[in-house]
Amino acid sequence: MSMVPKSHPRYKSLLNRGKVVEAFESGILAKGGLIAHGRGETYDYLIGEKTPKAAEEAIKASAAMLLLAKNPVISVNGNSIALAKDELIDLATELNGKIEVNLFYRTTEREQKIKEFFEKNESNNENYKNNKIILLGIDDANKQMPNVDHLRGKVSEAGIYTADVVLVPLEDGDRAEALVEMGKQVIAIDLNPLSRTAQKSTITIVDELTRCIPLLTEEIINLKQKNLSNNELKQISEFDNKKALNKVLKLISDNITTE
Amino acid sequence: MSMVPKSHPRYKSLLNRGKVVEAFESGILAKGGLIAHGRGETYDYLIGEKTPKAAEEAIKASAAMLLLAKNPVISVNGNSIALAKDELIDLATELNGKIEVNLFYRTTEREQKIKEFFEKNESNNENYKNNKIILLGIDDANKQMPNVDHLRGKVSEAGIYTADVVLVPLEDGDRAEALVEMGKQVIAIDLNPLSRTAQKSTITIVDELTRCIPLLTEEIINLKQKNLSNNELKQISEFDNKKALNKVLKLISDNITTE
Repeated sequence: MSMVPKSHPRYKSLLNRGKVVEAFESGILAKGGLIAHGRGETYDYLIGEKTPKAAEEAIKASAAMLLLAKNPVISVNGNSIALAKDELIDLATELNGKIEVNLFYRTTEREQKIKEFFEKNESNNENYKNNKIILLGIDDANKQMPNVDHLRGKVSEAGIYTADVVLVPLEDGDRAEALVEMGKQVIAIDLNPLSRTAQKSTITIVDELTRCIPLLTEEIINLKQKNLSNNELKQISEFDNKKALNKVLKLISDNITTE
Repeated sequence: MSMVPKSHPRYKSLLNRGKVVEAFESGILAKGGLIAHGRGETYDYLIGEKTPKAAEEAIKASAAMLLLAKNPVISVNGNSIALAKDELIDLATELNGKIEVNLFYRTTEREQKIKEFFEKNESNNENYKNNKIILLGIDDANKQMPNVDHLRGKVSEAGIYTADVVLVPLEDGDRAEALVEMGKQVIAIDLNPLSRTAQKSTITIVDELTRCIPLLTEEIINLKQKNLSNNELKQISEFDNKKALNKVLKLISDNITTE
């Protein structure tokens, strides 16, 4: 990981690959998470490893939607924590601080490893240390999402269960769909514009996590400074997701067929 | 793995995923191999999880090229063995039996695990048991490929070093390119039509391994029965790789932009 020179054309991609391998080794990520990361790598490559215009628009709408939310929650899993723990903490700090751990392969061991990963806080994230973050879903996942397998559907009452807006980076389709069915607004971050998560969510940001989370945080700070009315925020949050996804598909198509 | 019902629309894909996880657990596959499998999954999904027409044509040309070869060698790595060991053995049996192990992350432990995996032969492959296979590259990798890192460039003299045609399923770009520079004809099997391996090889079969290897074996048997002259085989082996790759890119583009 440290051997990749910064000048390498795919430096960031290889750095991220190193992060997920490290997370796997420390027990935060499941084997399935490594394969899933590979799927994401391909889509990122196909969109050109930069934030698409459609994603920039999705980020703006998402920022407004999150600011309007009464109880926004950031749902995290092994992959999203492995890649962007600090970026997610910074984002949560600009909201109500709520981060909920929601694992596809939930085991007590992985839950504890993840809790430690946040607490150990090697990267010395000030926002976490200053207790601005409420880590949910580990000791308090006592509610059950309808239409989702028992373990995968366990959520916190103060978190996802009562949230009005849920941000789901790298979520699986089943659960994203179930959240929508529960009446929540779902903001997905998913590199695959064809996935069920991407298709079913209220807003889908088709972008790589470590690139787009800081942009989303910046946009929230930006909107806060403007002191907009709820009506103005509501307008900004309006988003035609289907259209945006088609734009990304067109981008990929252009990228691979243009010499 | 055994819990996936056969009726599942992506049964084969999930079965293959199970195979690579199993190979990882038994030490045959490296962590990087899990991520690489994920990248392949995405491309297979994008081509529609079936053999493209361009791949069928590539398979025909490859069959003729392999029959014309004086010393054809099948290069295998952790992923290709994990997915299609038996299919590769059946293919080698129709040629000179030569399979060479060529690992990206070469360790003595992995070499031995792979040797055992062939010898244990749980799947009871008759062709392996009947000694029709010559497993190279483990005890005899004493030659060095030019322009490739030391460990990754170790090859067998009787195998890749003197081969005129090398079949490289799931090869990395560096090595595929080095093989071409050594003057060999390289037949790649690679789901990513944009990869350096795909672009640099003599013939690239853009298809999933467990689907296309049996088709290639069948085509070789088919051509053998026709008793063709070398000139006739030569004609069949002619192939415009660039054109074929562009056809696959067009297919992906159509798949993702057609509603």
